[in-house]
Amino acid sequence: MQPADLLKQIEFIKEVDKLKYILRKTKLINSDRNENDAEHSWHLSLMAIVLAGHANFPIDLLRVIKMLLIHDIVEIDAGDTFIYDTQKDHSNTEEERKAANRIFGLLPDEQAGELIAIWEEFELGQTNEAKFARAMDRLEPLLQNTSNNGGTWNEFGINYEKVYNKKQIIQQGSDSIWQYAEQLINESVEKGILRK
Amino acid sequence: MQPADLLKQIEFIKEVDKLKYILRKTKLINSDRNENDAEHSWHLSLMAIVLAGHANFPIDLLRVIKMLLIHDIVEIDAGDTFIYDTQKDHSNTEEERKAANRIFGLLPDEQAGELIAIWEEFELGQTNEAKFARAMDRLEPLLQNTSNNGGTWNEFGINYEKVYNKKQIIQQGSDSIWQYAEQLINESVEKGILRK
Repeated sequence: MQPADLLKQIEFIKEVDKLKYILRKTKLINSDRNENDAEHSWHLSLMAIVLAGHANFPIDLLRVIKMLLIHDIVEIDAGDTFIYDTQKDHSNTEEERKAANRIFGLLPDEQAGELIAIWEEFELGQTNEAKFARAMDRLEPLLQNTSNNGGTWNEFGINYEKVYNKKQIIQQGSDSIWQYAEQLINESVEKGILRK
Repeated sequence: MQPADLLKQIEFIKEVDKLKYILRKTKLINSDRNENDAEHSWHLSLMAIVLAGHANFPIDLLRVIKMLLIHDIVEIDAGDTFIYDTQKDHSNTEEERKAANRIFGLLPDEQAGELIAIWEEFELGQTNEAKFARAMDRLEPLLQNTSNNGGTWNEFGINYEKVYNKKQIIQQGSDSIWQYAEQLINESVEKGILRK
């Protein structure tokens, strides 16, 4: 690698520090403190390591983790979009694409291209790695909301059907994790923290 | 994997959420807000992906990232120890070992053993992967302190020699990154934000 490459990489590393300020709607486990995107990305990556054995198919774990570490970086420019937002498409907006080009574009060309491709792969959700990564992304807020008496479900009036539909994508990555998640959703209805 | 394994893994995943509350001494880039361990672990992991090409030797990048994602988890019980603390040994205290056993011990046995071994490998710093991972751990606060007018160096009266000695370990992982880091340290003296 060239020294010029290192300087570009350092600029990128400094720029993505801003992800630590992007707040999500969901709160930490048993907490009223909002999670930020950097913490969220760390947690999903660690979840992938721990839960990889439950994937429905062989996965390239390094690729899954790369996806999870970078999947929200575009939100530095585009902001966090709530998954149940009906006004705005959740992902892959023009704004996010522009953000990907700007932020990953700080890197040397080849590396920028690689990370943009990995981000797009996550967004499309078609490969095994993307399916498993997305399962992690849907599971974490389920653990958070159930620990917080319904959390964002209650705060924003999200009902069972909406939650169920959004979470079902977990099954594409792992049948056994989905079985657990489905049970958690049903228990939430029984406990009265998610309304039907 | 057994369903019982999944329940243990979920308990671990919930428990490590606490890493988001463990504050480090260093502040974010251009900021007076302390970084927490989860954000820090995310940042180092991403740095490893971006900077892997600068390693002095071939590295197993997935192993490096596993190390970085988990290296501070023991601090949930043992707390953050400041790298320049002269009263307390920085790493591998009895307290940290106990914490590793408790927290990783929430996982199924085989997985607990694997992650404890990876944590120990990082702490010992002997393998190529550990050397590169530790280089990331030393580089990030250098970027933070130089962006913050000396940051913790000024706040805690840490001088050039101490900083230089602690940072030199970067060279074990990457000559080119050390070259950059050394220059940054020298520039800090010239700028008057690090005293000789």
